[in-house]
Amino acid sequence: MSARNFPSIFLASAVAVFLLAPSLRAEEGMWTFDNPPLKQLAAKYGFEPTQQWLDHLRLSSVRLNDGGSGSFVSVDGLLLTNHHVARGQLQKNSTAEHNYLRDGFYAKTLDEEMKSPDLEVNVLVGMENVTARVQGAAKGIADNAKALKARSAEIAAIAKESKDKTGLRSDVVSLYNGGEYWLYQYKAYTDVRLAFAPEQQAAFYGGDPDNFTYPRYDLDMAIFRVYENGKPLHTENFLKWSAKGAAAGELVFISGHPGSTARQQTVSQLLLERDVREPAVIEYLQRRIAVAQDFAKQGPEQARLVGSTIFGLQNSLKVYLGRRDALSDKAILAQKQAEENDLRAKVAANPEWQKEYGGAWDAIAHAEDLAKPEIPRQIFRRADSQLFSLAQSIVEYVAEVNKPDGDRLPQFHEADLESLRFQLLSPAHIYPSTEKLFMKNALNLAATKLGADDEWVKAFLAGGEIDKTVDMLVDGTKLADPVFRKSLIEGGEAAVAASNDPMIVAARRVDPITRATYIHIRDSVSSVLTAEGEKLGASRFTVYGKNTYPDATFTLRLSYGTVVGFPYNGTVAPPVTTFYGLYDRAASFGNQSPFDLTPKQTANRDKLDLSTPLDFVSTGDIIGGNSGSPVVNRDGELVGLIFDGNIESMAGDFVYDGTKNRAVAVHSSGMIEGLRKLYGAGALADELEGKK
Amino acid sequence: MSARNFPSIFLASAVAVFLLAPSLRAEEGMWTFDNPPLKQLAAKYGFEPTQQWLDHLRLSSVRLNDGGSGSFVSVDGLLLTNHHVARGQLQKNSTAEHNYLRDGFYAKTLDEEMKSPDLEVNVLVGMENVTARVQGAAKGIADNAKALKARSAEIAAIAKESKDKTGLRSDVVSLYNGGEYWLYQYKAYTDVRLAFAPEQQAAFYGGDPDNFTYPRYDLDMAIFRVYENGKPLHTENFLKWSAKGAAAGELVFISGHPGSTARQQTVSQLLLERDVREPAVIEYLQRRIAVAQDFAKQGPEQARLVGSTIFGLQNSLKVYLGRRDALSDKAILAQKQAEENDLRAKVAANPEWQKEYGGAWDAIAHAEDLAKPEIPRQIFRRADSQLFSLAQSIVEYVAEVNKPDGDRLPQFHEADLESLRFQLLSPAHIYPSTEKLFMKNALNLAATKLGADDEWVKAFLAGGEIDKTVDMLVDGTKLADPVFRKSLIEGGEAAVAASNDPMIVAARRVDPITRATYIHIRDSVSSVLTAEGEKLGASRFTVYGKNTYPDATFTLRLSYGTVVGFPYNGTVAPPVTTFYGLYDRAASFGNQSPFDLTPKQTANRDKLDLSTPLDFVSTGDIIGGNSGSPVVNRDGELVGLIFDGNIESMAGDFVYDGTKNRAVAVHSSGMIEGLRKLYGAGALADELEGKK
Repeated sequence: MSARNFPSIFLASAVAVFLLAPSLRAEEGMWTFDNPPLKQLAAKYGFEPTQQWLDHLRLSSVRLNDGGSGSFVSVDGLLLTNHHVARGQLQKNSTAEHNYLRDGFYAKTLDEEMKSPDLEVNVLVGMENVTARVQGAAKGIADNAKALKARSAEIAAIAKESKDKTGLRSDVVSLYNGGEYWLYQYKAYTDVRLAFAPEQQAAFYGGDPDNFTYPRYDLDMAIFRVYENGKPLHTENFLKWSAKGAAAGELVFISGHPGSTARQQTVSQLLLERDVREPAVIEYLQRRIAVAQDFAKQGPEQARLVGSTIFGLQNSLKVYLGRRDALSDKAILAQKQAEENDLRAKVAANPEWQKEYGGAWDAIAHAEDLAKPEIPRQIFRRADSQLFSLAQSIVEYVAEVNKPDGDRLPQFHEADLESLRFQLLSPAHIYPSTEKLFMKNALNLAATKLGADDEWVKAFLAGGEIDKTVDMLVDGTKLADPVFRKSLIEGGEAAVAASNDPMIVAARRVDPITRATYIHIRDSVSSVLTAEGEKLGASRFTVYGKNTYPDATFTLRLSYGTVVGFPYNGTVAPPVTTFYGLYDRAASFGNQSPFDLTPKQTANRDKLDLSTPLDFVSTGDIIGGNSGSPVVNRDGELVGLIFDGNIESMAGDFVYDGTKNRAVAVHSSGMIEGLRKLYGAGALADELEGKK
Repeated sequence: MSARNFPSIFLASAVAVFLLAPSLRAEEGMWTFDNPPLKQLAAKYGFEPTQQWLDHLRLSSVRLNDGGSGSFVSVDGLLLTNHHVARGQLQKNSTAEHNYLRDGFYAKTLDEEMKSPDLEVNVLVGMENVTARVQGAAKGIADNAKALKARSAEIAAIAKESKDKTGLRSDVVSLYNGGEYWLYQYKAYTDVRLAFAPEQQAAFYGGDPDNFTYPRYDLDMAIFRVYENGKPLHTENFLKWSAKGAAAGELVFISGHPGSTARQQTVSQLLLERDVREPAVIEYLQRRIAVAQDFAKQGPEQARLVGSTIFGLQNSLKVYLGRRDALSDKAILAQKQAEENDLRAKVAANPEWQKEYGGAWDAIAHAEDLAKPEIPRQIFRRADSQLFSLAQSIVEYVAEVNKPDGDRLPQFHEADLESLRFQLLSPAHIYPSTEKLFMKNALNLAATKLGADDEWVKAFLAGGEIDKTVDMLVDGTKLADPVFRKSLIEGGEAAVAASNDPMIVAARRVDPITRATYIHIRDSVSSVLTAEGEKLGASRFTVYGKNTYPDATFTLRLSYGTVVGFPYNGTVAPPVTTFYGLYDRAASFGNQSPFDLTPKQTANRDKLDLSTPLDFVSTGDIIGGNSGSPVVNRDGELVGLIFDGNIESMAGDFVYDGTKNRAVAVHSSGMIEGLRKLYGAGALADELEGKK
């Protein structure tokens, strides 16, 4: 399980609508660090974390811009995350000669550590409640679109002030659907070098079938080292490695960055999601997977090139199938409906509340009706091309940076530009063969689903035939070269307008359509969802009080839970698995892919203590984006590494069910055993265990 | 999974109603040996078993009167079955000093082999279609009750003729719900000695939670040796042990005795089952389990005494919960309804058929309405006492044997008496403590559920208080002594009438009520179900032809299937498991019961090749009663030993779904590995492998 890698402006807007659950289920919650579940921990576990304990955990936790979480695990900047979070960087560093994804990687010395092309990691060092400023900016503005614009401008101003003053990456995040706004300040690191990764097959043992399931036997870990000024980062904010690791029945904590949840959506939004969005996304993913799999069959180098893409797509597909199934589950929908009915009834019972909040549900449903015809365009107007995405971003960039900060498109505000330029200038290699493959498929799909008369399709092709146009664009563009991209960015609007690079030309053609659509959605839908959602958020605070957590927003959260199995398959799943289970599953499937052992697993089996815990589950509440999150015990020691949820957790976007929802983690003892016995990485294990 | 150990006249009647499935699903079917699925095997597998192949498999297969199946596996009479089928005999041979259930058993020499107190095994040596005789006897008799009586008398006569002529155990079985009647002749063996059994914990690893699930890691085997005239049986009808055992993807066959299925019940019958019978049975089982578990907590000897009972009850409970869930599954009910609708529509479309068969469904529904109020009495009028059962059987026996054979209650016909006497005179020890425990619970439950005014309860207690009455009955009776029982049987009606043994006295009080109820049900319900069910069976033959199998009747059947995993838990279950998995599950649960290893498994771990297959699954269609069935390959070699079904197979009473319904077996290689490496039983392994 990794963070949803299916971006969508729409989803982000939709998720923003907020309804607090009237009563939380045990161990439910992705809590912000300003509002940790102290009452629950004291009541159920008799545990009272100090502010120091919380600060240390927060400052040891990191967010990776590839879409996952991680933590510092040594005084010299070692950073632990999942192999599947590091996968993109491994792919980018691999070549036909050095396949680090397939073969793994281990740097015996600092010199051998391998620079990541475009990995940025962020540490949340500051948090400030700016609700009054943001909400104040929109106060008294009756028109939703104007109010949204006022809020956006204020948010950009707050972020820029912070960035200018501190030099820190500064984001303003909307929590509780606008019930609160917070300025989050991050220390950013961009010199991040790979120290260790196992073979992909060891990390992702069981492949797509086992993904999102448990029992599991995956060593889904990777270790980077963060550098500052060319030297390993020295830090006291790291997690001490636990001597014995997670134990059955133990209280544990998860500190990470859940990507998004939709637990506070209205029922009308969930139904639109189920009936319109999910089927389209699923079709899109299935088509793209089929194309990638066909390509992979052409040879080992082709398979290498699309391996990471297939992983990501299959992962997303399993997520969306899970979402669809969850929303088709009558019990889940009934629960959501009951929650909504309860809040509506309580609001309606108080005339003042009814006047203030009572219209929100219908207004949201109406806005969703307006959004409905746009959804297929949102899904299928896609070029599936890194080169085209770069072209599009550059065309937007040079235009946006000339505007007042508050008027810009999101992601182009002053405070965003440093991280954005880091991405736009990534030296990672781009492969023409896969660019063409995916682009042709995407454009064919767009033409089929939206019709050849779709204005985006027409603008993109400009009368040309799909295959020829794509070949011409990819063969003709120089955007694969970061130096060329830099020249365009620095040349500004004039340089971009004058460019005859075919991909830039295509992006210029498409740009007005994308902008117009964005503005249409923003003003007619997003602005309503923001304003009305804010009312729902406020109504929840009013009716139930603030004793809860906001929907996930890929910001730092604290979850807690117990290491415990769950009912499964007519029996009970164990709290932990062991290396025995890995060898069982391999032998049970005759060592056939995706259940085959790696050469190292085969050769070094007898060195292992097979009873060593490998993976484990806990009741902690997580979602995509939590991948790579550290699991710590009461002493704040690292006992595990989140990498997945069980199949029952797929409904976690909408509801949390502590009887069967489980977070799946690699066990700290399994990581040490693997490093020492399978990979001969004793020095690294020593560093993790504080023995050097 | 073992045979349903919840006997019920009612269920047997109800099951008798027959509807053929219009089209069989792949690998569905429990085929009689006179009508094997030759077409299907040829079409799908290109396999054409010879008559000799079929005869050899049939003659190597055995039925155990404890409710399971088995097979001969050596020229010297070794008989392979499940530990859980042998459990009753192990329990009966155990004492406070020698706990063979807990510790297992291995006879190093013939002299050490241990006689089973009351185990009878049957081999199906003859089969004759007697449909014409049985149906002819009822021909032209309009009154259902009289027709049933005529059929029963003819059946008894056929069995007696056969028994007199051949000396063989002779049963007439109703197949296709009376569409056919067959005389089955069995060679019976009653000198059956235990050669080997593992520890119960090794056989039933994972306990009740893992029961009816897969993946599994159970060595659920026991080996008896059949003796004849005091010497090991010499036979050519045994299954050769396969050198490599079941392999993934392989075609395999299962030859055994499925107990009962209800696939041809009408929808009205299924609904009665779901809404009336299942809830009552479930309540009864739960109550009895609670009482047994409380008793087991009193000490190790108490735990030993009720261990086998708890296993059986929990097993039954899981079956009935599975049945309830299956009948609560809308998709399953819709399928049954669609099948029924199809047959009814086809019958209705032909005026002649409609006249002949069209009234059957409503007649059956009407009979079920009459049965409805009787069901709670059927469930709760139970003494749960071996001593009382013996008393009741003796009281019935002495009366019945004086009647003409055709007029007797079922199970008291001439042809049945030899096997019946073997049971009634069993030397197995009966424990007063558990007798009192279960009897008091059962009578309290009966009084609660049926009321103190229930005539059976009143007759049983005769005005006495429950606890005191039970103490008086158990303390006062001499029925625990088989010599005393023999004296009553031989003394006949006079001896029984004169007896002042309190248990016999109680049985005499209850006898008229039991008989009256039986006769009421027989004449008003069973006779209708028989007559109308016969019509439905005939309508199926008429409409669809005879290209199918009858519902299970604890008679010998042939199933076939492929060794293959199935979708489970969001991923796929493997076709086989290995010893690695056993040690994984134990370590994963911290070696806690019921996932703990036995001392031998712990001590001898390093001797094992852990990659040896331990259990496996196939698509073969089985049900309770198939426990102990041999699994053979195309060459007729033994590759496995059926011991369970997966959780998805619990719906198998009503429907077969080849995508997920799986038969679970011990792997032949796992048995040899266990015998040699865990139990030091190399000599026995040599004999099985034909090496001695």
